Amino acid sequence: MRLKFPILALMLEVVTIVLYALLVVYDTGDAHGDGSHEESNTTHSSSPMTLYPMFQDVHVMIFIGFGFLMTFLKRYGFSSVGINLLLAAFGLQWGLLLQNIWHMHNGKITINIEKMINADFSTATVLISFGAVLGKTSPVQLLIMTLLEITTFCINEHLVVGVLGVSDVGASMTIHAFGAYFGLAVARVLYRPGLRNGHENEGSVYHSDLFAMIGTVYLWMFWPSFNSAIAEPGDPQLRAVINTYFSLAACALAAYATSSLVEKKGKLDMVHIQNATLAGGVAVGTCADMDIQPFGAMVIGITAGVISTVGFKFLTPILASKLGIQDTCGVHNLHGMPGILGGLAGIVAAALGKKDNVTATYQACGLASSLGFALVGGLITGLIMKIPFWGQPPDQNCFDDSIFWEVQHEK
Amino acid sequence: MRLKFPILALMLEVVTIVLYALLVVYDTGDAHGDGSHEESNTTHSSSPMTLYPMFQDVHVMIFIGFGFLMTFLKRYGFSSVGINLLLAAFGLQWGLLLQNIWHMHNGKITINIEKMINADFSTATVLISFGAVLGKTSPVQLLIMTLLEITTFCINEHLVVGVLGVSDVGASMTIHAFGAYFGLAVARVLYRPGLRNGHENEGSVYHSDLFAMIGTVYLWMFWPSFNSAIAEPGDPQLRAVINTYFSLAACALAAYATSSLVEKKGKLDMVHIQNATLAGGVAVGTCADMDIQPFGAMVIGITAGVISTVGFKFLTPILASKLGIQDTCGVHNLHGMPGILGGLAGIVAAALGKKDNVTATYQACGLASSLGFALVGGLITGLIMKIPFWGQPPDQNCFDDSIFWEVQHEK
Amino acid sequence: MRLKFPILALMLEVVTIVLYALLVVYDTGDAHGDGSHEESNTTHSSSPMTLYPMFQDVHVMIFIGFGFLMTFLKRYGFSSVGINLLLAAFGLQWGLLLQNIWHMHNGKITINIEKMINADFSTATVLISFGAVLGKTSPVQLLIMTLLEITTFCINEHLVVGVLGVSDVGASMTIHAFGAYFGLAVARVLYRPGLRNGHENEGSVYHSDLFAMIGTVYLWMFWPSFNSAIAEPGDPQLRAVINTYFSLAACALAAYATSSLVEKKGKLDMVHIQNATLAGGVAVGTCADMDIQPFGAMVIGITAGVISTVGFKFLTPILASKLGIQDTCGVHNLHGMPGILGGLAGIVAAALGKKDNVTATYQACGLASSLGFALVGGLITGLIMKIPFWGQPPDQNCFDDSIFWEVQHEK
Repeated sequence: MRLKFPILALMLEVVTIVLYALLVVYDTGDAHGDGSHEESNTTHSSSPMTLYPMFQDVHVMIFIGFGFLMTFLKRYGFSSVGINLLLAAFGLQWGLLLQNIWHMHNGKITINIEKMINADFSTATVLISFGAVLGKTSPVQLLIMTLLEITTFCINEHLVVGVLGVSDVGASMTIHAFGAYFGLAVARVLYRPGLRNGHENEGSVYHSDLFAMIGTVYLWMFWPSFNSAIAEPGDPQLRAVINTYFSLAACALAAYATSSLVEKKGKLDMVHIQNATLAGGVAVGTCADMDIQPFGAMVIGITAGVISTVGFKFLTPILASKLGIQDTCGVHNLHGMPGILGGLAGIVAAALGKKDNVTATYQACGLASSLGFALVGGLITGLIMKIPFWGQPPDQNCFDDSIFWEVQHEK
Repeated sequence: MRLKFPILALMLEVVTIVLYALLVVYDTGDAHGDGSHEESNTTHSSSPMTLYPMFQDVHVMIFIGFGFLMTFLKRYGFSSVGINLLLAAFGLQWGLLLQNIWHMHNGKITINIEKMINADFSTATVLISFGAVLGKTSPVQLLIMTLLEITTFCINEHLVVGVLGVSDVGASMTIHAFGAYFGLAVARVLYRPGLRNGHENEGSVYHSDLFAMIGTVYLWMFWPSFNSAIAEPGDPQLRAVINTYFSLAACALAAYATSSLVEKKGKLDMVHIQNATLAGGVAVGTCADMDIQPFGAMVIGITAGVISTVGFKFLTPILASKLGIQDTCGVHNLHGMPGILGGLAGIVAAALGKKDNVTATYQACGLASSLGFALVGGLITGLIMKIPFWGQPPDQNCFDDSIFWEVQHEK
Repeated sequence: MRLKFPILALMLEVVTIVLYALLVVYDTGDAHGDGSHEESNTTHSSSPMTLYPMFQDVHVMIFIGFGFLMTFLKRYGFSSVGINLLLAAFGLQWGLLLQNIWHMHNGKITINIEKMINADFSTATVLISFGAVLGKTSPVQLLIMTLLEITTFCINEHLVVGVLGVSDVGASMTIHAFGAYFGLAVARVLYRPGLRNGHENEGSVYHSDLFAMIGTVYLWMFWPSFNSAIAEPGDPQLRAVINTYFSLAACALAAYATSSLVEKKGKLDMVHIQNATLAGGVAVGTCADMDIQPFGAMVIGITAGVISTVGFKFLTPILASKLGIQDTCGVHNLHGMPGILGGLAGIVAAALGKKDNVTATYQACGLASSLGFALVGGLITGLIMKIPFWGQPPDQNCFDDSIFWEVQHEK
């Protein structure tokens, strides 16, 4: 850490500031009259602050939700919430730049609340991948991952949503599946045989599980904002809220029931509750704004809750032992499989709802592209992160804040 | 737990989904032109998302507020926040159905943000009652209580608000007093003589009290949203916010002062601060949107703060020892007495404000009906919950997560 | 504590209620047509609830943000979050009165959401000063400080913003610098030679640092609301949000980098992360709504992050040892120096942006006035607080909840 971390962090920030000085301005004044009003229905307010409450909900999901969700580890809470803040703070600056270089006005990127929401979204990919490699990487490695992952994400997102016109309002494919498989590819490259039999710090204590529940509950509550924030105002946005609300409610019941079914003596497992209750939000993302009806959303939610819990119980150990993928937070179960389920649900909804196989085919291309970019991008990024120069912690110091933080000894 | 819990949870969810498939649709398109616009003043926005920020505030109160408030017990945090999530996730689905079967359009229930707020509200009754029986009931029992209590609540609410036209914008009577006395009736039926002399786990530790303060502070902050969310837009909604804000502020001072007065050496008691600071929000609920003026709200708040603190100190022990009502969280002090105070304040405000004894009489009927449904409903529900089939924990396992959860041993 | 605290608290509340009964009414009906509409642009909604989501963000900063930020001390969490609630609950009632006695209508103060936001703001000054004397003062002393500091704040704010017309939308000068130097002056007067060599309870434990991060992250997320809540609707408000968002993001990178640079072995220090990441929000406050462009905000943020971290590392120990200022939370580094930086940035922005030395001079006067009122007001308040009648804790009981709270012994 001695010098590499501060130098890298400051260098990234200075380069970003220079690029902002050249390229980024406020979206004020006549920028509001850029034609987007014509598309919106009469219920749309033209205030530049209309989306601000949704932005803050998403902001809370990024910084409190993701940050505290990862504090479940007994000795890694500082890094979970602290490095989460660092990566997201850099990522949102970088993401806003790259998401908007495709459509500048007079050589300038104009910032408004919607673009801030999208910038926050772009950081979610990194925070999901962070979950896969949590406890086994240095801040330097993670800043590099942030830079490369957000760049890859912006290319894929532009291709899928911008060029192909694929629907993915809640980003099941472009954020959740992408972030999960990117992170899993990185984790595969960084495989640690020495942790094959676990690590004494890779577990929770009572209060660390309660801190993690702060993250869980915030993600659960505000997921309707995540899935509806950039939906078309009016009915589509309302549908996105309602579908996500009910998908999550049904998913919660399914996660509790399945956890009790698969555990000894019918007990509940905190890992399942912290994560699988959220899978319904991921899985309903792609078709959140579509006319799937509340019961359709609930079917997606219950399916996601079951799949996710079963994944934690049975698939995660297999990925670790057979495929060499050590997925600390089980992002495959929360974001990977539910993200694919969301993509598939979008294909089905497009095929049924619009009676339109072309649209369905485009949706399928969107899913394939997201997975492809994630896996290839993740492998390359993993190889770069593996260069022994970046201060990766040795096996015995994994899952331990004290390698990167001043930690007070209790009492 | 082995099979009963997952079977019951999945069965409830599947039945709910079938009913939603038959009955529930989005409130989109022409549903907005249903005449409600004429009533609203010119400041009312017609966007379907107008109430969304208030909905999210209420959502936070339900899932973070109630959930973390109950984490004060040293060994029952997983259940407090986890079972809170489970019950509310099921309850909101069930509540939305039952609250709206009285007024369907073309055989359909149409969902919008206001109905989601009301659905969240309906779960609050259960979460209040949960506080009375916290630590002494199984998840199966609690799911049954959720089903029966929300059903009873919806009947009483329809009678009081829908048929009698009683004012109860912040639901002092229909939610708080109802939920408290329902839960106390259940607690009476489930009386445990074996816990007469307390239980070693029925207490807090330092950090569990801090987790509980997260719940307290969120409830305290967002209570203005609870009391104003379904108020008429414009001045009544503004009054509801202002009255609740000042009632809570005055109540906080009163709770601190009274706690110090009744404790040894003038110290403060965390139980009082966690709960009695909130009594002002409960007590101002019924007349929150009325023209009681800020100082009137403050008088209600200060009264509630004193009554609630005194209740914790002197009444709760008597209820347990003389009446056989073991009220774990003291919901009688936070929701019961302040809820009745709120109902009485509403009667007085109606009698004074409108110079109208008929309205005041209807308000009194609303309070009586809420208490009656709560006590009778709670007694019947308690008897059903007492059937020895539902896995109620034995005395020695009360207030202990490890009977229902996989719990890691520290270190 | 025995009687002084409850008597003082109740007396303050009763006096406040009497004043409210005489002076305070709702801002309803024609009060909305008071001419403020003409100034606002067409994007401004005239609903009385427009600012409500921003109010709630500010509310969360005051009660969760400030409250939990101070829970970092291992044995002082009850007081941090609990006394924070007490002081803010009283302060907002008192602040609303004093902020508005300068402009009453027909002898009445009319309350709306904007005035509630300003009332919350006024409490921030006290909570900042509370940080300087945290652990070394009694609730009675702190209530007195609240009364006197808010009174002083309201006079200075009226002079600076009302009379001189100084720009300070995010209150770098009138709240942050004022609150910090007021608190430091009080701390100087209350200097304790007996704590010269530290105190065993003046430090954190692992979980207390995580609780504090809840406060940090909420402050970090919602700071754009703090700086924009009372900005002119439309473009200025949007600029205030965007500038604060980017200032904080750049500041976070700078704080992490600088913390690693100044600590042994390049480790991160939780104290820096909890506080210095927020300095960008303070420093961009005065010119948040000005046209400084996003990169300008980032330059302010990065500067504030470096200054604040360096202050914690090198300046705080010197203040304690050389000047007798024991600043428990380091408010000089989070609010003091960044507040002055914000005031200076405002002067520069006024001089450059408006090519107007008169405006710049007024800005400078606003900074000087805020510092002057803070230092003089703080010294006088400190002398009053030093009167031995108010139950100030002896040295050995500092930083320990158990002197004012019933504290359960672990296990």
